[in-house]
Amino acid sequence: MAEQPLPSRAEDFAEWYNQLVVRAELADYAPVRGCMVVRPYGWAIWENIQQALDRRFKATGHVNAAFPMFIPMSFLEREREHVEGFAPELAVVTIGGGETLPEPLAVRPTSETLIGYMYARWIKSYRDLPVLINLWNSAVRWEKRTKLFLRTTEFYWQEGHTAHATEEEAEEEARRMVGIYEEFAVTEAAIPVIAGQKSDSEKFAGAVRSYTIEAMMGDTRALQSGTSHNLGQNFARAFDIQYLDRNNTLQYCWTTSWGLSTRFIGAIIMVHGDDKGLILPPRLAPYQVVIVPIYKSDDERAQMLAEADRLAQELGGFRVYIDRREEVTPGYKFNDWEMRGVPLRLEIGPRDVAQGTVVLARRDVPGREGKLTVPRPGLSERVGTLLEDIQAALYRRALAFRKEHTFEPVDYPELQESVERGFALAWWCGSPACEARVKEETRATTRCIPFDQPGGVGRCVVCGLPADRKVIFARAY
Amino acid sequence: MAEQPLPSRAEDFAEWYNQLVVRAELADYAPVRGCMVVRPYGWAIWENIQQALDRRFKATGHVNAAFPMFIPMSFLEREREHVEGFAPELAVVTIGGGETLPEPLAVRPTSETLIGYMYARWIKSYRDLPVLINLWNSAVRWEKRTKLFLRTTEFYWQEGHTAHATEEEAEEEARRMVGIYEEFAVTEAAIPVIAGQKSDSEKFAGAVRSYTIEAMMGDTRALQSGTSHNLGQNFARAFDIQYLDRNNTLQYCWTTSWGLSTRFIGAIIMVHGDDKGLILPPRLAPYQVVIVPIYKSDDERAQMLAEADRLAQELGGFRVYIDRREEVTPGYKFNDWEMRGVPLRLEIGPRDVAQGTVVLARRDVPGREGKLTVPRPGLSERVGTLLEDIQAALYRRALAFRKEHTFEPVDYPELQESVERGFALAWWCGSPACEARVKEETRATTRCIPFDQPGGVGRCVVCGLPADRKVIFARAY
Repeated sequence: MAEQPLPSRAEDFAEWYNQLVVRAELADYAPVRGCMVVRPYGWAIWENIQQALDRRFKATGHVNAAFPMFIPMSFLEREREHVEGFAPELAVVTIGGGETLPEPLAVRPTSETLIGYMYARWIKSYRDLPVLINLWNSAVRWEKRTKLFLRTTEFYWQEGHTAHATEEEAEEEARRMVGIYEEFAVTEAAIPVIAGQKSDSEKFAGAVRSYTIEAMMGDTRALQSGTSHNLGQNFARAFDIQYLDRNNTLQYCWTTSWGLSTRFIGAIIMVHGDDKGLILPPRLAPYQVVIVPIYKSDDERAQMLAEADRLAQELGGFRVYIDRREEVTPGYKFNDWEMRGVPLRLEIGPRDVAQGTVVLARRDVPGREGKLTVPRPGLSERVGTLLEDIQAALYRRALAFRKEHTFEPVDYPELQESVERGFALAWWCGSPACEARVKEETRATTRCIPFDQPGGVGRCVVCGLPADRKVIFARAY
Repeated sequence: MAEQPLPSRAEDFAEWYNQLVVRAELADYAPVRGCMVVRPYGWAIWENIQQALDRRFKATGHVNAAFPMFIPMSFLEREREHVEGFAPELAVVTIGGGETLPEPLAVRPTSETLIGYMYARWIKSYRDLPVLINLWNSAVRWEKRTKLFLRTTEFYWQEGHTAHATEEEAEEEARRMVGIYEEFAVTEAAIPVIAGQKSDSEKFAGAVRSYTIEAMMGDTRALQSGTSHNLGQNFARAFDIQYLDRNNTLQYCWTTSWGLSTRFIGAIIMVHGDDKGLILPPRLAPYQVVIVPIYKSDDERAQMLAEADRLAQELGGFRVYIDRREEVTPGYKFNDWEMRGVPLRLEIGPRDVAQGTVVLARRDVPGREGKLTVPRPGLSERVGTLLEDIQAALYRRALAFRKEHTFEPVDYPELQESVERGFALAWWCGSPACEARVKEETRATTRCIPFDQPGGVGRCVVCGLPADRKVIFARAY
């Protein structure tokens, strides 16, 4: 029964991650190169993410729809930058119903082109605008090396696609959606993120401007966790998405797209996890409380399970799981659920029943310190408060970690050193050459130009020329 | 503005359907052969179906997960009947990341094979059983001719896949799930269905037994609306899904699969719709109530819209939509929402406000008869009751229609005549030859052997030999 412990994060972060994802039963490798199976425990996190986002999308006027997974190759070619960006990573269907297809079909790497084609058919007048559609589906980008959740050939996501009458409205939408991602990451996942703009070299293939939220993982590397794009009129012109304005003049629409994927589960794992395993933020955890009955005899077992059922009922407002396994010890169960990151463990044994108490153990506070014996009356309120505390504590800890590992280098040697140890927030002149040099020499890329700028001017950390913005350089997943 | 009316159902049922789906904005033809775009109004119905089913699946112990869309061709070949059934309709990816793949990948026509491979890895002991997993995704089967919702190359569905320790448990599961489909169809969609077993020639490729719910459409043809399969040990043997039983002996599992797809939206359209358009069952309708403000001046417009907002708030427990369009008349809106099948229309004009009333119009009762002037106090309760009435009335009407078009032929000429006009419930000896003759000569197939049997014995409607079961023969979609 006893398994090898996980490698420690300090020792081998990548291996800690890879083993944890499989052992916690979040996901598994599929027998198709680059693909993953998301197991029920992992998918339950995704369902909670979906609900949290979908609520926010609908509250801001968006509706869901479904577009086909197949895209004619000629569609992708209509927007030059788009096809250059995506052509190398396509999966292509060439046979259908036993026959070679006259035109091969790409499996959707993203849907801007198909959206463009349909929007051009649907939109006639300013009265039809804005169109605010979101899709929950999966996309395919052929990957050479797989890392579960972070880089898989097929991944699950939502892709929003909107069309607007004016440039301002499109820009407002693109900014609104990155704002929703930011608020979602902070509120639901307890992940501090830096929202900002991508540099031209890092933006989406076909976008005028891309916005992003960037999070720092437990190894100090960055993870792009959600992006939103102002596509200008690029796709509108490529697909003839036009509308008659109030003066009866034909105008091109302004479009946006935005997406957040199962990669975000990778962020949750790598931001909050510790050497014992996952620590799931209570708002997204499949189980918020796991009840472990403690007993010595069969009689006691029956009593404690009955007690556990009563407790689960009392805690009806939370997601509760009772571990009824007979073949393993309570100690094994403690380790198992610690590894699987359940925020609160509730232990119930004969002594607790006699005393009218239960033992609660916080996943985020190890050992004795995180253990509390609490009275049964008012248990549900207590659990609610504790879950909120855990959620807040996770956020604070992640934020403190990021601050601790964010540096403000003022010259190139400092920059080189900074990106070895975390994020470098530094003045940048905006030149692609400076950006390219950093990437080449340090493997760090510009993650984003934060919305939150200090103001004023400085000197580019690479070339020393005047710079009016600070940028985050970091090594990224 | 004024559009051509729909063709009447009596005149051209197929054309009525095709036009209605597009004009009601449920779905549209994609620029990829055989594929559809499900538009927001159609997808909202599917989301309501998903929620209604997902609730039922979870209440019976099932959990969701996600499996890749790509399946190695060799996997499909491991179960002989399975590959024979699906090979002719596969979409095949032969190129990935710019290179020809060593082994082509089928785009999932259904996931039994990939499930089999993974279950074999996950299941070790009887303690791991049952495994009760459901997937919400899309599947691809290459279709020559498209009919939106009913027959598209890519369709949306759920596919449940379970593994059990015993044959009895697997059979129980397969029956439980067809039972859930039946209850769902009746309760949520107001569609009467006949639950029963498929004949051997009509069962799923690879199943031991297939169960189905069959519904009668408005043109008296049958639509298979959900199916559940007892797969025996066929896939367990093909993929080595084995477990150690309590005596430490290696045993093959018993598996099931079951699915319901966006085709069900086709059933809703064809069962309830009338010559004016859709009639959506209140429990699944995207909007249960549409509010149409009536006004003559700009002042009145502002007042009526404010009134509509208040009403929408009062009706907060329902899905309500306010039609604020300025460019069309109330009459146009009435027709439009009738076409789009909203169960209840609420009209609010200055006279109603003065009298403290609103006008409600039932979609299922045309003209004056369906119109009521009701007082504002207690409006929400009244709307709730009316929606329940509509739900019940739709079911009664559909059931009456099916009864009226179900015949019990006792000989072959009667059978031939029956299937021209609806369902034929007739004694069948069970021979595939009799079944094949009916199909050949009348284009009617056996839809199911209803669970609900009269008992006793009779004479086969085809060959006259003794028969111990009755079967439904019908022309089907």
